[in-house]
Amino acid sequence: MKKVLIANRGEIAVRIIRTLKEMNITSVAVYSSGDKDSLHVALADEAYCIGSPSSADSYLNIDNILQAALMSGTDAIHPGYGFLSETPEFARRTEELGKIFIGPTAETMEKMGNKSMARQTMEKAGVPVIPGSDGIVNSIEEVKTLAANITYPVVIKAVSGGGGKGMRFAHSDEDVDKLYAEAKKEAKSSFNDDRLYVEKYIPKARHIEIQIIGDGHGGAVHLYERDCSIQRNNQKLLEEAPATILSEKERADITETTRQAIEQLNYRGAGTIEYLYVPEEKRFYFIEMNTRVQVEHTVSEEVTGVDIIRAQIDVAFNDDIGFSQNDVQLTGHAIEARINAEDPASNFMPSPGKIETLHLGLGRNVRVDTHIYSGYTIPPYYDSMIAKIIVTAKDRHSAFEKLQLVLGETVIEPVKTNLDFQYYLTGHPKVLANDYDIKFIHTENIIE
Amino acid sequence: MKKVLIANRGEIAVRIIRTLKEMNITSVAVYSSGDKDSLHVALADEAYCIGSPSSADSYLNIDNILQAALMSGTDAIHPGYGFLSETPEFARRTEELGKIFIGPTAETMEKMGNKSMARQTMEKAGVPVIPGSDGIVNSIEEVKTLAANITYPVVIKAVSGGGGKGMRFAHSDEDVDKLYAEAKKEAKSSFNDDRLYVEKYIPKARHIEIQIIGDGHGGAVHLYERDCSIQRNNQKLLEEAPATILSEKERADITETTRQAIEQLNYRGAGTIEYLYVPEEKRFYFIEMNTRVQVEHTVSEEVTGVDIIRAQIDVAFNDDIGFSQNDVQLTGHAIEARINAEDPASNFMPSPGKIETLHLGLGRNVRVDTHIYSGYTIPPYYDSMIAKIIVTAKDRHSAFEKLQLVLGETVIEPVKTNLDFQYYLTGHPKVLANDYDIKFIHTENIIE
Repeated sequence: MKKVLIANRGEIAVRIIRTLKEMNITSVAVYSSGDKDSLHVALADEAYCIGSPSSADSYLNIDNILQAALMSGTDAIHPGYGFLSETPEFARRTEELGKIFIGPTAETMEKMGNKSMARQTMEKAGVPVIPGSDGIVNSIEEVKTLAANITYPVVIKAVSGGGGKGMRFAHSDEDVDKLYAEAKKEAKSSFNDDRLYVEKYIPKARHIEIQIIGDGHGGAVHLYERDCSIQRNNQKLLEEAPATILSEKERADITETTRQAIEQLNYRGAGTIEYLYVPEEKRFYFIEMNTRVQVEHTVSEEVTGVDIIRAQIDVAFNDDIGFSQNDVQLTGHAIEARINAEDPASNFMPSPGKIETLHLGLGRNVRVDTHIYSGYTIPPYYDSMIAKIIVTAKDRHSAFEKLQLVLGETVIEPVKTNLDFQYYLTGHPKVLANDYDIKFIHTENIIE
Repeated sequence: MKKVLIANRGEIAVRIIRTLKEMNITSVAVYSSGDKDSLHVALADEAYCIGSPSSADSYLNIDNILQAALMSGTDAIHPGYGFLSETPEFARRTEELGKIFIGPTAETMEKMGNKSMARQTMEKAGVPVIPGSDGIVNSIEEVKTLAANITYPVVIKAVSGGGGKGMRFAHSDEDVDKLYAEAKKEAKSSFNDDRLYVEKYIPKARHIEIQIIGDGHGGAVHLYERDCSIQRNNQKLLEEAPATILSEKERADITETTRQAIEQLNYRGAGTIEYLYVPEEKRFYFIEMNTRVQVEHTVSEEVTGVDIIRAQIDVAFNDDIGFSQNDVQLTGHAIEARINAEDPASNFMPSPGKIETLHLGLGRNVRVDTHIYSGYTIPPYYDSMIAKIIVTAKDRHSAFEKLQLVLGETVIEPVKTNLDFQYYLTGHPKVLANDYDIKFIHTENIIE
């Protein structure tokens, strides 16, 4: 009997435990003392407390998690998403203990964690990238020369960047003169790494990402693409599959190009290659690769029938994805709405607290992935996402109509949630017309 | 904008309202005063109280329901299952008001409601029937002559029968001498109709039924079969699709034979043809036809992708099923567990009352059709079924394993339910081995 520890919490821990149970694998939960009444603790076969509520003391505490892995005699660790899922040190130390890390190698994670190196790697593997510098830039002059070539506007970015830190938009040589030092300084203070690189700025784009799974020795399948263009402050709100903005040929080309690139990398496990897609140009530009399962993996599962968590585990234990590209057929349209405990009326401030009333809209073609229950207290320490409502229908329009009906039936009280905001979005004319870009929520002034 | 009244309550009313909303049709609920806090009342666009809690005063009260149909200006009535769904008078009076009855004609319902006539009709249409009398029997001698021909044991049944009333099993001429008058008398007192007919007794059989939808003018499709052999006192508990006990050829033959018979009847709407199937003989025997949607229609929806309620409405409004036989593909395996508010420890006595705690096992490939919610009070007046938990997986064994996990996660308290009983059944070795007949729960002494 195999045993897997889930180094995570919330809905993704519950999601992973369910598949482990279906596979007859013993599940080991870890939890902070703030999560002792959490559903993942109740559902797992075993559970270990790994520290106090703060993430740094618990879900980010490698020592404590590995201690639980040793105590429980676990064979493998599933990192979920967020927390330590993209931390090479965690993967490396897991494997040093003789345990399987359910994900790619630490080396792959390092390569893809360095934005500039990821870009170079993917370009070499044949993936379209945003025009920009070959690796790091070392001077203002170098930026200006490049900009003359790829044309303004350009973005100066930190190699170790994230969350917009160390990032500056330049529309002219004068901007570069003014902003280069600023970006370098902010990169240094934010990431202790002042290396910068430059990319052309892509103003009006959609976020399209390809779900892939690699077997670790040169084989890979794709599970088609997702369109995650409805975002607020770069946080995805509604994700769908397939991306109906693409033609059949564009879909076939980008998924196969991406799959082949992943094969060249000998990639192991589930991963997502994110692109900006510019409808007017009909071109893709690589943004980054996430070397873990995504929140929105559910919609790919719904339109392909594949259990992505099972595939991750199959690869980890057997070096085998469990199915081939020919087995993957695209059927219907799926959309996921992220439900967050936050108050749209107060700038989406998190709204933790006790859930007194919980009623979910359910029925045919509705899937709800959640860790909440009536009487559960949402702790203030972690991400505010409390549920994912996923619907499937025959086409995009029907799926949005259905999602809106399900959102309308759902009651989560008295904590504040974005249910009404999502209800509004799923009925918005531009959303239904598939006519928007990733800045849509901000440029349309939807947020009051 | 069309308008449909749902002459029902509980989960099926909720189910129908959801599809009406997806079709942009206004939904009109009717409810007894005992159901004013019911989910179907809250979800419908309009709701009319039709009487006091007793079914006879409300959900069986044709006058009051038709009054609500007139007041609301409804175009059509969906009867659901149970209550008036198979009452020809209700269909006839609905149509006399110029409104559409979402189901077959009153004449078809009458023909199929008479067990003996249904048998003759289906035999003429080419469907295999249980050897027995051509219509009614008029004397003890006639029964004995027939029994000599088809061999004992035989069952004497009431033409208007149901629930085992007026039914007697005879193993010999002496039994016939003794039981004939008894059956006649019981039929008279139960149904005010003492006509009897005779069929051969089929001792060890499975319950296999075919879901069909007819367009009312000679076209029909089938949605494959369901196996509903796990029953307690003729009440189905677990229903699945497909019936893996059948070979591909048997499946193809019985579904096509049934579909053609339904075409000959010019049948309109959804219906189910129920068979006994004897594995040793590899033979089917027609039992009866249900001229309405079944509780267990959900599993056929899961393995075919068809929305059966939508098909009913399409036929009713447009004489068009909305798809053809070639569009119907069978994928995966689905099982439904009926969750009843009843106490297995007290001979399954109904257990109405307030639900304080409700937690459903959800996630990938789980569908829950229910009208209950946390804080809902189950009234004592109606059927004790409170939820249907439906899971889908790649094959039968995986589906039972998954169903058991979902049942294990589900909490409904403090009312008593059959959750634990279903949990036990879904793990029973004979169930998993697909080795049982419709008497299984009784012959295995599973009920203590």
